[in-house]
Amino acid sequence: MSDSDNADTAVTAAVLVIGDEILSGRTRDQNTGYIAEYLTAIGIDLAEARIVPDRKDDIVAAVNALRARYTYLFTTGGIGPTHDDITADAVAAAFGVGIDIDPRALAVMKARYRDVELTAARLRMARIPDGAELIANPVSHSPGFRLGNVYVMAGIPSIMQAMLDEAAKTLRTGRVMGSETLEIRQPEGAIGDPLAELQDNFPDVMIGSYPSLDDKGFLTRIVLRSRDAARLAEATAAVRAMLARFESDKAE
Amino acid sequence: MSDSDNADTAVTAAVLVIGDEILSGRTRDQNTGYIAEYLTAIGIDLAEARIVPDRKDDIVAAVNALRARYTYLFTTGGIGPTHDDITADAVAAAFGVGIDIDPRALAVMKARYRDVELTAARLRMARIPDGAELIANPVSHSPGFRLGNVYVMAGIPSIMQAMLDEAAKTLRTGRVMGSETLEIRQPEGAIGDPLAELQDNFPDVMIGSYPSLDDKGFLTRIVLRSRDAARLAEATAAVRAMLARFESDKAE
Repeated sequence: MSDSDNADTAVTAAVLVIGDEILSGRTRDQNTGYIAEYLTAIGIDLAEARIVPDRKDDIVAAVNALRARYTYLFTTGGIGPTHDDITADAVAAAFGVGIDIDPRALAVMKARYRDVELTAARLRMARIPDGAELIANPVSHSPGFRLGNVYVMAGIPSIMQAMLDEAAKTLRTGRVMGSETLEIRQPEGAIGDPLAELQDNFPDVMIGSYPSLDDKGFLTRIVLRSRDAARLAEATAAVRAMLARFESDKAE
Repeated sequence: MSDSDNADTAVTAAVLVIGDEILSGRTRDQNTGYIAEYLTAIGIDLAEARIVPDRKDDIVAAVNALRARYTYLFTTGGIGPTHDDITADAVAAAFGVGIDIDPRALAVMKARYRDVELTAARLRMARIPDGAELIANPVSHSPGFRLGNVYVMAGIPSIMQAMLDEAAKTLRTGRVMGSETLEIRQPEGAIGDPLAELQDNFPDVMIGSYPSLDDKGFLTRIVLRSRDAARLAEATAAVRAMLARFESDKAE
């Protein structure tokens, strides 16, 4: 259900990335950035992300900490067919429920694999915690699942993205956060004082300052964010005027 | 100090990425992957990573959870000159120590900026918690710092990388984890059962299985990791033999 009644209540989320390969540096996590952008676009605030190894105790602890704190928790990784895929078991343990071969998941897999191919390893992918709803996987068929407010998805980005599209149909979304970005070719230290004053004047607009360095030198991006379009426009105009004054001062 | 006396004791670390811009999806975090690879290469196990917003309570809670649990904690982001740069204050609060303009940091900044440029905003970058050591910043000069086992670094990747090189000189490192990678053009479900048996036979070697999809179809990478070179070689030979048997079975 997309619940516009609750549009003014912030909807929050966390991401939990599960996998030794991310922590060893062998694989770069692409999922957190993708999910972050996706949730922002539908009005859900990603409030925290964690990466933990393929160790059951660590997964259970992170699932329980994050599901209690945020509206939703999205996990990626660890639901494949090999011995190091322990996410489903860990999520069942976190909720204190049983886990076994799920007839719905088994049916999906039987439709895909011939009997001879339904190895014990592959059958692991049909293990779903009691009480969970399946999340369809249009890419490679073995499903993810939702248990309570926890959405358990694959780690392979193309599969995770397809599962997230499925999951999104069931999410309560908030009012979309509007944002404006202004840039100035100065290090942020130059504009930090007037910017802090403007933040004091607009406490209801989040004003962030993000410095970077490229071959032309310092570039500072000022990002303003608010769910209130009118206040966002006012604050943006004020910051733009400050930057313009700053530029003309410098040109003198 | 590089402490080879402790080579057999695992040295662990966590990364804490601080910044609203990462959680909103506006900026993709490049630092965690870089640090992960770097630490693996010097024999330190990255055991967890977290991303939190620019909110003091969240930063304090994460710093205290992670510094207690691991040998080292590396933070990135939030030490610039603007109002949303609150990492130094949060780390001081986490340790329960004071924070003020640090004479050493001020000297570095005076050498760089003319008096007129030393705005209140820039002076924020000289605020260092009591008892901390500075981490030199050869790129833009404003230093990071180390307090206890916590290394506080910039968020801009080029600056963070230079600070990490500085920080690494003081780290205790472990015996480097060796690794071998084998590949097979099969989905991992096909080899999951024999692979689980091999993991049982080599409990002292971590065997991970990482599936991916490309335009040629499924590709599974088996990654073996151990600090014991002889056991790693044995396990690698055993997995290679299994994969070869599997390939010849399929060819029949």
